[in-house]
Amino acid sequence: MEASEEMSVRVAIIGASGYTGGELLRILAVHREVEVAAATSREYAGKPITHVHPHLRAIYKGMRFIEVDLDKITKADAVFLSLPAGVSINYVPKLLESGLKVIDLGPDYRLKNPEDYARWYGFEHPHPDLLEKAVYGMPELYRSEIARAKLIASPGCNSTAAILSLIPAIREGLIDLDHIAIDVKVGSSEAGRKPAPGTHHPERENVIRPYEASGHRHVAEVEQELSKLAGKSLKIAFVPHAVGSIRGALATSHTWLLEGVDEKKIIKAYALIYGKEPFIRIVRGPPVGYPDPKYVIGSNFADVGFAYDGRVGRAAFMAAIDNLMKGAAGQAVQSFNIMMGFDEREGLTYPPLKPA
Amino acid sequence: MEASEEMSVRVAIIGASGYTGGELLRILAVHREVEVAAATSREYAGKPITHVHPHLRAIYKGMRFIEVDLDKITKADAVFLSLPAGVSINYVPKLLESGLKVIDLGPDYRLKNPEDYARWYGFEHPHPDLLEKAVYGMPELYRSEIARAKLIASPGCNSTAAILSLIPAIREGLIDLDHIAIDVKVGSSEAGRKPAPGTHHPERENVIRPYEASGHRHVAEVEQELSKLAGKSLKIAFVPHAVGSIRGALATSHTWLLEGVDEKKIIKAYALIYGKEPFIRIVRGPPVGYPDPKYVIGSNFADVGFAYDGRVGRAAFMAAIDNLMKGAAGQAVQSFNIMMGFDEREGLTYPPLKPA
Amino acid sequence: MEASEEMSVRVAIIGASGYTGGELLRILAVHREVEVAAATSREYAGKPITHVHPHLRAIYKGMRFIEVDLDKITKADAVFLSLPAGVSINYVPKLLESGLKVIDLGPDYRLKNPEDYARWYGFEHPHPDLLEKAVYGMPELYRSEIARAKLIASPGCNSTAAILSLIPAIREGLIDLDHIAIDVKVGSSEAGRKPAPGTHHPERENVIRPYEASGHRHVAEVEQELSKLAGKSLKIAFVPHAVGSIRGALATSHTWLLEGVDEKKIIKAYALIYGKEPFIRIVRGPPVGYPDPKYVIGSNFADVGFAYDGRVGRAAFMAAIDNLMKGAAGQAVQSFNIMMGFDEREGLTYPPLKPA
Amino acid sequence: MEASEEMSVRVAIIGASGYTGGELLRILAVHREVEVAAATSREYAGKPITHVHPHLRAIYKGMRFIEVDLDKITKADAVFLSLPAGVSINYVPKLLESGLKVIDLGPDYRLKNPEDYARWYGFEHPHPDLLEKAVYGMPELYRSEIARAKLIASPGCNSTAAILSLIPAIREGLIDLDHIAIDVKVGSSEAGRKPAPGTHHPERENVIRPYEASGHRHVAEVEQELSKLAGKSLKIAFVPHAVGSIRGALATSHTWLLEGVDEKKIIKAYALIYGKEPFIRIVRGPPVGYPDPKYVIGSNFADVGFAYDGRVGRAAFMAAIDNLMKGAAGQAVQSFNIMMGFDEREGLTYPPLKPA
Repeated sequence: MEASEEMSVRVAIIGASGYTGGELLRILAVHREVEVAAATSREYAGKPITHVHPHLRAIYKGMRFIEVDLDKITKADAVFLSLPAGVSINYVPKLLESGLKVIDLGPDYRLKNPEDYARWYGFEHPHPDLLEKAVYGMPELYRSEIARAKLIASPGCNSTAAILSLIPAIREGLIDLDHIAIDVKVGSSEAGRKPAPGTHHPERENVIRPYEASGHRHVAEVEQELSKLAGKSLKIAFVPHAVGSIRGALATSHTWLLEGVDEKKIIKAYALIYGKEPFIRIVRGPPVGYPDPKYVIGSNFADVGFAYDGRVGRAAFMAAIDNLMKGAAGQAVQSFNIMMGFDEREGLTYPPLKPA
Repeated sequence: MEASEEMSVRVAIIGASGYTGGELLRILAVHREVEVAAATSREYAGKPITHVHPHLRAIYKGMRFIEVDLDKITKADAVFLSLPAGVSINYVPKLLESGLKVIDLGPDYRLKNPEDYARWYGFEHPHPDLLEKAVYGMPELYRSEIARAKLIASPGCNSTAAILSLIPAIREGLIDLDHIAIDVKVGSSEAGRKPAPGTHHPERENVIRPYEASGHRHVAEVEQELSKLAGKSLKIAFVPHAVGSIRGALATSHTWLLEGVDEKKIIKAYALIYGKEPFIRIVRGPPVGYPDPKYVIGSNFADVGFAYDGRVGRAAFMAAIDNLMKGAAGQAVQSFNIMMGFDEREGLTYPPLKPA
Repeated sequence: MEASEEMSVRVAIIGASGYTGGELLRILAVHREVEVAAATSREYAGKPITHVHPHLRAIYKGMRFIEVDLDKITKADAVFLSLPAGVSINYVPKLLESGLKVIDLGPDYRLKNPEDYARWYGFEHPHPDLLEKAVYGMPELYRSEIARAKLIASPGCNSTAAILSLIPAIREGLIDLDHIAIDVKVGSSEAGRKPAPGTHHPERENVIRPYEASGHRHVAEVEQELSKLAGKSLKIAFVPHAVGSIRGALATSHTWLLEGVDEKKIIKAYALIYGKEPFIRIVRGPPVGYPDPKYVIGSNFADVGFAYDGRVGRAAFMAAIDNLMKGAAGQAVQSFNIMMGFDEREGLTYPPLKPA
Repeated sequence: MEASEEMSVRVAIIGASGYTGGELLRILAVHREVEVAAATSREYAGKPITHVHPHLRAIYKGMRFIEVDLDKITKADAVFLSLPAGVSINYVPKLLESGLKVIDLGPDYRLKNPEDYARWYGFEHPHPDLLEKAVYGMPELYRSEIARAKLIASPGCNSTAAILSLIPAIREGLIDLDHIAIDVKVGSSEAGRKPAPGTHHPERENVIRPYEASGHRHVAEVEQELSKLAGKSLKIAFVPHAVGSIRGALATSHTWLLEGVDEKKIIKAYALIYGKEPFIRIVRGPPVGYPDPKYVIGSNFADVGFAYDGRVGRAAFMAAIDNLMKGAAGQAVQSFNIMMGFDEREGLTYPPLKPA
């Protein structure tokens, strides 16, 4: 945050008091090309940023949350929005008109089919034309589109883990597309900053709790992106589980292999698809056999890998992320870097924190 | 333990220093029909039981571990064995000959096909005839056989959760038997009492770690029992995950439903199969939508339930247990009670501990 | 709960939806002399008990919370109140008049000096005469008074740990009474069932957080009881800390020893004071050197012990409890048992749960 | 690690496979003035660094642990040693002779009085002359000496928290020096990387466990440094407790205030002593009232603060650190930066990770 050089890109964060907002502030504090020009919070407007994010004391000295004021915000060069479903749509058109680069971390521009908003999110999308222009902000799928984009719809955390686990298997045609079951496990920070009975510590600690198991909203973007990869419409079984950590998400995608697919072919697919990705690490033990979010905490890495079970003719494909980083703020900054022409890793070079 | 009335059944525990042994001691301390006559431990022989189980101070006053001495032990009426794979086979024949009722909590008598021992456990089984006589100690499947049994092979913890999750769906013919993926999540106590690099606190806390994901040993008994239920040989996709609690296991069994199966049929199947089971609770929210081990900790209950997803034509069937109770010591005592003609719930009536 | 024999004592619980209420329900479900006749909750009146306490499914079948209705409640024989400060005072006089035995788990009758209520709790006490009649419900201090009491003021959790840690040292005159610093560490369940920003899982997990460090309300009862023991008015330094478990409280009382006091004298004092207490266990390692709540979870035990440091002429006296048991519901039932003439341990015999 | 510019300082790490070694690798990977030239491990020599530190995959590509080979290591410019007590003494003299700057993270050069080694560590110190030359590596006490030093003895983690909590109170003469009780709470990573029965996850999670409560080794350096500050020989009551997090240490120092000392004087002392320290943050709520390691995880910050209790005439002084950072690797790099003339904050600018 001390870097306020004249050449810095000025960014605003709309919705900066939540966990994802806090992560954006944390990352951007060490981003050498950026100055945080404004951070909004309806609830905490007027209060110091450190009132909500005490870990950022001595880093964001004196800076205070402001109300959303588009006239002020449009003086920035780029804007991150971290808001509940259905709120970004109130700001994005004007921000785009003003020429800002927009990175929306919520779901409002992730889905291509406007009808999906009524179905999964319960609102009519007011500007379906923008859905076409928005780029789904997963660099592993859309790096070149991101580079040219004006509006990024940054993926959800469960979705990121789910999709990353299956890109090689689907793109390389390894699996039975009619039987895909994605089992996600995720830490408590996914639920956001707002206290609720289910996230009260004595209630939340030690759970292994399935939730929204009959149709989680993230299924919409997972099916959209995997269908596009598969070249046909897929229906996915998707069950998320809350487990007892704060950060981290693991997707275990249970699949059945097509005739003739063996371990070598899978390894080859991973190398081909992910071999050069700066934030994807292919995990083949020992010492650690499979991806585990434990090893990516605090970083933008996604660790990917798989378990091949020839006896049953199946494989489980896995992806492990920090849900607030590669699953939210980190991936958003990665896309922002690509969009702005910066080094894709800028602000994201600090290694994972372990043990933690 | 204070109950040493003359009419008590005398039980011995071989392998009493591990977590399952500790749970047996904990349960039997309040079992009104039982006196613990001996508790063995190779490593701690001669030391007080409370040296290893300090929580049992004031309960097992003065009692010490002894070496395994079959002459002494055969003076008991019944014996629990809680030993690593391949060790019980050294004791069981003699114990049976001496007329004791035997409950083996290890895997040595769970599998019916002797060849499975070579394949999954790496040893040749020395007395295949006993495999036929042993009863798989899951009362929900074999209550009447348990009542007549002399040798109980008590199920594994992951297996218990996996099998209980699927009995109604398979017995009532609800699902596609060719695509079953069981995803298990389990706490750290499953790995037992012995320290190892992977269970060192800073390494184990906060993991979401797949393990033995290409062929966990418990698959053998899961496939054996589910195949028997299905009336045909099944191959199961099975992936266990270590998650960040001490106790608790959840099986989420991902399945595709047969044509015409809807939510009502599933509910009916549960009621039919589990409606009268003393330790099975059918969970249909609210407030809690699905089974979660959080609500059974310290008890012998298994909470079961499911998520129906008509859109995809699939359901996830779930079972939540305390891995050391219904997944080990509790279920063993339940079988023991049935075998001895006691109230099935004796020693197991204390409610789950929550919040914990 | 199934025990509804004609000879049972009928008890009511006012305020049964919180954690302490849940613990009372859990304990009384296996108490052989008791039938739970009514459980009240303003917030959940009309809802099944299992709506709030899902772990008690299959145990409190069909039972529902009711509104507080003193006409109904006074038909019971005894009543437990588990209410916020300043609420019990509205019910207790009428309950006593109706002849019920009353156990109040809140602070409304713990302090003897009416002025202390204005000072520490911010309300004028409406019936100071009852303060004299109420007995502070710590059996280790007042067993015979409890046996004759009609109104028990059951101690707070931090207070219980603090007082139990120091009874031998003060009663036997071992320490400098002018320099006592009690440092308490406690799990998240102490804050009760109501979600708040500070108890939201991502905020609460992993904290080591001092709170109310300049004057916690429990100081009042700690000073009252320790002063009575000392025979002079004491001022205590008292700092509680929230740490990352759900259950458990440890008091570490830092003291300086009087001239001539050595380890032997301390051991002797413990044996003298606590040697015959049914729920106090004196801990002298190995294998476990000092009290740790880890070993008492789910039980009514208090583990006590000390560290003697001759070099500095000081000792740290420790007491470890489960804050919801010996620190709340368990101790209340212990007092209730004494009051009613039952075996003091009835309902409280289940051993601690470990590992948990 | 990719920065291998010609102007980089070459550093070696002796003992790089432990947690502190891992933290040094993590920090130095982003340190712009440094190249890690060698990392030793007796146990893992020949294995990739990522075998032991899987979180550093993609960061330390191809680099392997080597055996300690002083001929190779002396080609570096500076060396960090992270070794058990009594091992550094075998290497340090030769390293100094070869002209390297030496930062020892173990205790071998922390104490000034050679006799203290026999007493607290059980070995005769072989070169007492070096004890005089070594500088205790706490920049808040010895910044200018560190700048000129050749040998830094970096403080222990418990000691760092303890000393930092009391510098203002002692230097400014606020407290009774005869009654100081330091109560420390610390996470599991403090015990290092090696599995042991007490750190096995089911045993370690949820503990509130006093340890070495009658005379922890760190008392030696705490008394040494606080006595120097006080200008007289102090004896300190010191009790560490293991609590249920991985990282983080909090020292709560219970003290009695001298006549006339009030809150204002304490605030003034903090401002005077710590106002300009780059890694000390003075905490005065709200929203967070007192220091809590939760807010410094992953960073080199120490949060300090106090609770003033005028009624009792006492104050509790607190310091919260990440035990592996300001308590070990972070503080060592801070001292290294000062010693080498770099920006004191280089490599240490990444904000704390929260929630975590």
